[in-house]
Amino acid sequence: MALIVQKFGGSSVANAERVMRVAGIITETYKKGNDVAVVVSAQGDTTDDLIEKANEINPNASRREMDMLLTAGEQMSVALLAMAIEKLGCPVVSLLGWQAGFITDTTYGAARIKRIEPDRMRAELDKKKIVIVAGFQGINRLDDMTTLGRGGSDTSAVAIAAALHADRCQIFTDVTGVFTADPRKVDGTVKLNEITYDEMLEFATLGAQVLNNRSVEMAKKYNVELEVLSSMVKEPGTIVREVAKMEKMLIRGVTKDTQVARISVVGMKDVPGNAFKMFSRLSGKGINIDVILQSVGRDGTKDITFTCSKANAEKAVEVLEDLYAAEGAVVSSDTSIAKVSIVGAGMQSHSGTASKMFGALYEAGINIKMISTSEITISVLIDAADADRAVSAVHKAFFPEN
Amino acid sequence: MALIVQKFGGSSVANAERVMRVAGIITETYKKGNDVAVVVSAQGDTTDDLIEKANEINPNASRREMDMLLTAGEQMSVALLAMAIEKLGCPVVSLLGWQAGFITDTTYGAARIKRIEPDRMRAELDKKKIVIVAGFQGINRLDDMTTLGRGGSDTSAVAIAAALHADRCQIFTDVTGVFTADPRKVDGTVKLNEITYDEMLEFATLGAQVLNNRSVEMAKKYNVELEVLSSMVKEPGTIVREVAKMEKMLIRGVTKDTQVARISVVGMKDVPGNAFKMFSRLSGKGINIDVILQSVGRDGTKDITFTCSKANAEKAVEVLEDLYAAEGAVVSSDTSIAKVSIVGAGMQSHSGTASKMFGALYEAGINIKMISTSEITISVLIDAADADRAVSAVHKAFFPEN
Repeated sequence: MALIVQKFGGSSVANAERVMRVAGIITETYKKGNDVAVVVSAQGDTTDDLIEKANEINPNASRREMDMLLTAGEQMSVALLAMAIEKLGCPVVSLLGWQAGFITDTTYGAARIKRIEPDRMRAELDKKKIVIVAGFQGINRLDDMTTLGRGGSDTSAVAIAAALHADRCQIFTDVTGVFTADPRKVDGTVKLNEITYDEMLEFATLGAQVLNNRSVEMAKKYNVELEVLSSMVKEPGTIVREVAKMEKMLIRGVTKDTQVARISVVGMKDVPGNAFKMFSRLSGKGINIDVILQSVGRDGTKDITFTCSKANAEKAVEVLEDLYAAEGAVVSSDTSIAKVSIVGAGMQSHSGTASKMFGALYEAGINIKMISTSEITISVLIDAADADRAVSAVHKAFFPEN
Repeated sequence: MALIVQKFGGSSVANAERVMRVAGIITETYKKGNDVAVVVSAQGDTTDDLIEKANEINPNASRREMDMLLTAGEQMSVALLAMAIEKLGCPVVSLLGWQAGFITDTTYGAARIKRIEPDRMRAELDKKKIVIVAGFQGINRLDDMTTLGRGGSDTSAVAIAAALHADRCQIFTDVTGVFTADPRKVDGTVKLNEITYDEMLEFATLGAQVLNNRSVEMAKKYNVELEVLSSMVKEPGTIVREVAKMEKMLIRGVTKDTQVARISVVGMKDVPGNAFKMFSRLSGKGINIDVILQSVGRDGTKDITFTCSKANAEKAVEVLEDLYAAEGAVVSSDTSIAKVSIVGAGMQSHSGTASKMFGALYEAGINIKMISTSEITISVLIDAADADRAVSAVHKAFFPEN
């Protein structure tokens, strides 16, 4: 007997049939003797439809009224899911974000959870009820509806698991777990049984969007054990926890990110504070920087190359031209690149991981444009056109037996 | 400068264009210097669509979850209406039932308002904001969503007008006011400028469904001045208040009710307590009785005839056969009848009103099956087939100049 938090996304409850399927998963968990709290998103396209309705009336509507509108989406889905569970004969109660005690700040549209007051949830669980909570929403000190920012319902689920000291937080998705590479693109991938928070964070950052980073960060902070699993296929998923068994693996997997751009500034004056000025200006414009590489250029100048998201490339170039055009530096961007990475805490204790990766790329005839490493990742920038081949080649080098 | 409460039904806000029109009416009132609180229902068919969605999943869902689902409907409409008002450049805030302070009992699906805590509404009005309140909903002592029973959003509007001591409560409908008869069916009808609460109640009861009775009763109790007017046609409506000018009219109008059935029990034993037993049993089954007529039958038996709603006719016959079949009484029902009534406080001080009505029916060759009177109404039961002709004939007798 345990306390399990389960989270289902919008596509898992898109229609009556899927709502009934999800209700089946929940009641099965409940009937094994577990306490169950569930977080659910708005059904299918509900949120998009509501945004369209709002835009038809006023494309510049206040975020406060937008949140009032959007939070109705999860309200409908919790009620419908509760009705489905009633049909299966289990005691259940649906709760809105505020009823579940989600107190947020007043940043409408991207609110942060300040605290959770779990009394009501606890009381309903004590009555042996399944508790269904509206994801992605809370209430602020003005008693107004808010929606959470990035991470949305995943974050709601982890927050509840933390507040209730749940034994596990199961995130149901359309994949059966976390794989050593994207199974739709690469042959011979393996589903991981376990993975650490840090590895999961790298996976998400590096473009394998299974779990939202904010929710993984929160799970790490409160030591909430996550499980990523499928709502369609009944099999154990991937557990995310602080210490995970490596099972003779050197790395956890290979990922790629094609939403990346490389920006170069060539011929800057070599004076102190230049890098500080550049990156604080970029950060002020909301541009997040990933890999940075600085080298000495000709004639006492220096060159800086960095990567950012493709969406920010144009803005970054503008900012930099503003800064450096006067001193004759040349700013250029390259958006036809991809980042391919290997992730795994295991590589720390093994030499030769990097050379194995580079060797595989060399054999495949793929040119490396830039390299960066962290404690648990090695990333290379390559031509976007080579990305899928690169992932396959590297994956084969590290997981040859599959 | 006044405090005006305005109420708009679901069809008035069914699409973006109509929402903008309603926003125009509201901001026009506001720009004249008035404080404005607005009650709005769910858009168009939203409520029906949600009920259908629920039925697809669980036709026997609990009322608690049904209310959780349905209250999302008004939540969406208040947000969209607020966005429309923002677009027109006026300060506005949308409030859910509980945010507006609607405290109800725990009867899900048919909750009664226990009290209104108007602090939030008052504070927003003091900030010169237009306040948009979700109709038809409140919150109970368990902090759960409830929907109000009969009357719905009309009742919400009157309750707010009472709580805020509003100068007037305007109920916007698809007609321009209350008429002496149904203008779609009868020639020469006149729109009433004023009408009393009691007359309005009789109008509603007698089948002219402009305002819900519960809201009129509440308006009477708290002396809230109502105005029934159109959201499509810009002209003064009908004022409903305690004392209304009669303007040389003998009666206010003629109404018909075709949702009525006549039930007869012929040949009951003439013993004391029989009528009590009959009507307490019917009442226990939730069957409301309207007109009652008792007469002496043959051989020391007695006959009782009464009317109830058509929907209850079958159940009433069952109950009565259970009671009286053993003693040989015969139960019969007639559902092809209609009730035609005249309403008006003026008739109390005039003799000859009844004979004028009966004379008009006689001249039209319409047979009267039953008669009943109250202080401000005279009703006759006739064949359903004669109903429209009867209303026209009676209307012409009392309003000959039109």
